[in-house]
Amino acid sequence: MDKVNLAEKFSRFSEQWSPKIVGELNGSEVKIAKIQGEFVWHHHEDADEMFLVVKGRMTIKLRDGDVDLSEGEFFVVPRGVEHCPVAEQECQILMLEPKGTLNTGNVQSERTVDTPDRL
Amino acid sequence: MDKVNLAEKFSRFSEQWSPKIVGELNGSEVKIAKIQGEFVWHHHEDADEMFLVVKGRMTIKLRDGDVDLSEGEFFVVPRGVEHCPVAEQECQILMLEPKGTLNTGNVQSERTVDTPDRL
Repeated sequence: MDKVNLAEKFSRFSEQWSPKIVGELNGSEVKIAKIQGEFVWHHHEDADEMFLVVKGRMTIKLRDGDVDLSEGEFFVVPRGVEHCPVAEQECQILMLEPKGTLNTGNVQSERTVDTPDRL
Repeated sequence: MDKVNLAEKFSRFSEQWSPKIVGELNGSEVKIAKIQGEFVWHHHEDADEMFLVVKGRMTIKLRDGDVDLSEGEFFVVPRGVEHCPVAEQECQILMLEPKGTLNTGNVQSERTVDTPDRL
């Protein structure tokens, strides 16, 4: 039962595309990540996924258009919807998704993180 | 499938202690609220509740101590745990909790909002 200071958590790591678990509630996990460049196209069969930009800008590419997110903006990718996160500059994001959701969803890639660290 | 700009959503209302639904995922709702003063002591029998401070400061009083939250900090109140949110100055918060969670939990009060607006 500790509070979480997002800036402090982000200061603890530098690697990109490596989600860290910072909280848990109602069967879901709160994760944070630093991202830059383009991720992989994937979807989550049974998980809606929320992306909130804490710092910077990102784009969530969807098959039918892009969603551009700035600081203080969020988007929920519905389950089953293919998406590909992209960030030109390093961007800090907070994600919310069911416990155990794999970052690359249905795709196995070098970006897949099977067991995210808990910060 | 629209993105949500938190600042824009907060600009749409001025009333305090009146949660607004701004998103939904995995059976949970994302709500925002402006708070000032002291709320009522209550708990949620079956719901963990996340409080993230978007602007300002707040305190979550617990029976065994206070949790002070500033901008960019969050805390999860576990289900069953009595709590009482307080803010000296107006504070903007984002909450995450299971769909249909009542703001005053087990307590019926003048602060109870049975059907939060959707923004």
